[in-house]
Amino acid sequence: MSQKNKNINPNFKKSKRKEHSPKLLSDKILAGDKISLSHALSLAESVLEKDRSAISTILKNYNPSDTKRIAVTGPPGAGKSTFINSFGYHLAKLGNKIAILTVDPSSPQSGGSILGDKTRMESLINQENVFIRPSASGTESGGVSAATMESILLCEMAGYDYIFVETVGVGQSEVAVSDLVDMYILVVQPGSGDELQGIKRGIMELADLYLVNKADGDKIDLAKLSAKAINSAKSLMHPKAHGISPQTILYSSDSLINIDIVQKTIEDFFTNISENQYYRINRNNQMSSWLTREINKSIIETVEEIEQIQKLKSSLQNQINNSEAFPIEAGRIIKQAIKEIFNSTP
Amino acid sequence: MSQKNKNINPNFKKSKRKEHSPKLLSDKILAGDKISLSHALSLAESVLEKDRSAISTILKNYNPSDTKRIAVTGPPGAGKSTFINSFGYHLAKLGNKIAILTVDPSSPQSGGSILGDKTRMESLINQENVFIRPSASGTESGGVSAATMESILLCEMAGYDYIFVETVGVGQSEVAVSDLVDMYILVVQPGSGDELQGIKRGIMELADLYLVNKADGDKIDLAKLSAKAINSAKSLMHPKAHGISPQTILYSSDSLINIDIVQKTIEDFFTNISENQYYRINRNNQMSSWLTREINKSIIETVEEIEQIQKLKSSLQNQINNSEAFPIEAGRIIKQAIKEIFNSTP
Repeated sequence: MSQKNKNINPNFKKSKRKEHSPKLLSDKILAGDKISLSHALSLAESVLEKDRSAISTILKNYNPSDTKRIAVTGPPGAGKSTFINSFGYHLAKLGNKIAILTVDPSSPQSGGSILGDKTRMESLINQENVFIRPSASGTESGGVSAATMESILLCEMAGYDYIFVETVGVGQSEVAVSDLVDMYILVVQPGSGDELQGIKRGIMELADLYLVNKADGDKIDLAKLSAKAINSAKSLMHPKAHGISPQTILYSSDSLINIDIVQKTIEDFFTNISENQYYRINRNNQMSSWLTREINKSIIETVEEIEQIQKLKSSLQNQINNSEAFPIEAGRIIKQAIKEIFNSTP
Repeated sequence: MSQKNKNINPNFKKSKRKEHSPKLLSDKILAGDKISLSHALSLAESVLEKDRSAISTILKNYNPSDTKRIAVTGPPGAGKSTFINSFGYHLAKLGNKIAILTVDPSSPQSGGSILGDKTRMESLINQENVFIRPSASGTESGGVSAATMESILLCEMAGYDYIFVETVGVGQSEVAVSDLVDMYILVVQPGSGDELQGIKRGIMELADLYLVNKADGDKIDLAKLSAKAINSAKSLMHPKAHGISPQTILYSSDSLINIDIVQKTIEDFFTNISENQYYRINRNNQMSSWLTREINKSIIETVEEIEQIQKLKSSLQNQINNSEAFPIEAGRIIKQAIKEIFNSTP
């Protein structure tokens, strides 16, 4: 301990942090306490064993409910945040409890978009029945997905019934997030149709609803053109597993044009997928994908702790450094080594 | 065998495919044979053990050379393909050998962008010293990166000295590809600066050169504005590891404005990173990342073949299906099981 800290009460730091037990946190989340929810969401983003264990304990008190998990994605500048802001406000005024999570795995170096976009959620921030959680940062593969799924479950424990998951910027999240939600909204801005060329067919095909945003003022004609381009592109796409053809709706976060149609389309979608069982089947499939990710992560973490594997890894690293082998060969050697370790098990 | 095929010579299919041995393929690639190179690139995209083994053998004949590996990324519609087409043509006319690979991991369902972009490479396709390889499709995590790195090495074996790696559409490739190249070019189109807001700081910071494309006709003023916005954003960014401040250049694939400046900037960049050792150090680091990916993949594939783990996985899957557990808990159980298996090793 340094001279400087000598007279500080050694319990100070500990007493200041005052960590709640997972059980207490769980009770408070179930009672709808936003601060406890925030705390738990931070635990969900942590990789510490202690925090993973706490989340595991908290989630034992989760009870499945008929919530609506909705992804909002789209190219940069399409107005995803302004859509969520205006539409979420509308839903909140009708008495719904809205949680908004943002997913941003594309910025390993620093996080956050250059000009920021938190300011665009201003009308929502002060709503009592709205909970906004900015970007989870996460660099490990699969880390963001797992943390986001846990975050969704925690929000549902706290009673939120609409969970919006917004993807931020150009990133790998557009596909990953489809594995976390019931409905996928693709927001685009008015354009000649040329803009659509850049949106991959794979992303286009994920959409359950296309929203042409900013459809007001002098952009209304361009917006109609975009809708037409989307509708003609639809004919090239594979049908969705749930069998419901995605709608294309013009929208404006300023004029709120068609906001009731957006709401009705979303509600109808959920009614239909509940009736045809897609809602349940899809959630089960997502749980299986999550299981696979967790198992893979656990396997790697555990095997890499084995002494023989560690030694082999550093020897392979040396060979690679000396240009004596390529990683493709190293992978084959590791496979052989693991097999030998297991075969020597009694 | 069905009645219909009864009279077909049983050797017909085999003799038609006529697979070359890895050794022969390797020799032909070293002699610059494009068809053999194409064949090897298909092997690099395969997950079959036989094909992995063939690639491993072929790459034993790789000799490191001072090639230029250049990523070309940017938002949809920025004109990445038209840039590579015009600039690649310029380089090829000067006697360079150009290989162009596209990376597209974002479209697991079908691959290919809706309106296609192969047509935009037309002037390059007929050049003798140009090799174009369209999109490798790959759905497994890490699969595309590994296949692309192997593809780069194979192109270099065939004597190509400029390797362009183009990312296609909105995808997870923008960050992943930076781990495969020496230089990262970010292509943007003229805009008010608002467009930059959508490009994540993480992506912006990866760039070694900003190219404002389509800087001609009535877009020239807007292009200058974009360049200004990029330059002011630069001041917020972390410095690059190689210490070279990225340039911003106005370009047009139609008028070819500044094409010589682009070329000189790229050549200077490579001279500088060779002198300050970044070129070598960066390639070593990339090799280590690739090693890690290959090892992780091999670990998962091998451990999942173990009978006890397979049984445990299906029991966990049942628990998940019956809502008795969440995947976070399953991961913890798998860890414990692997540790027990290894501890019982003599």
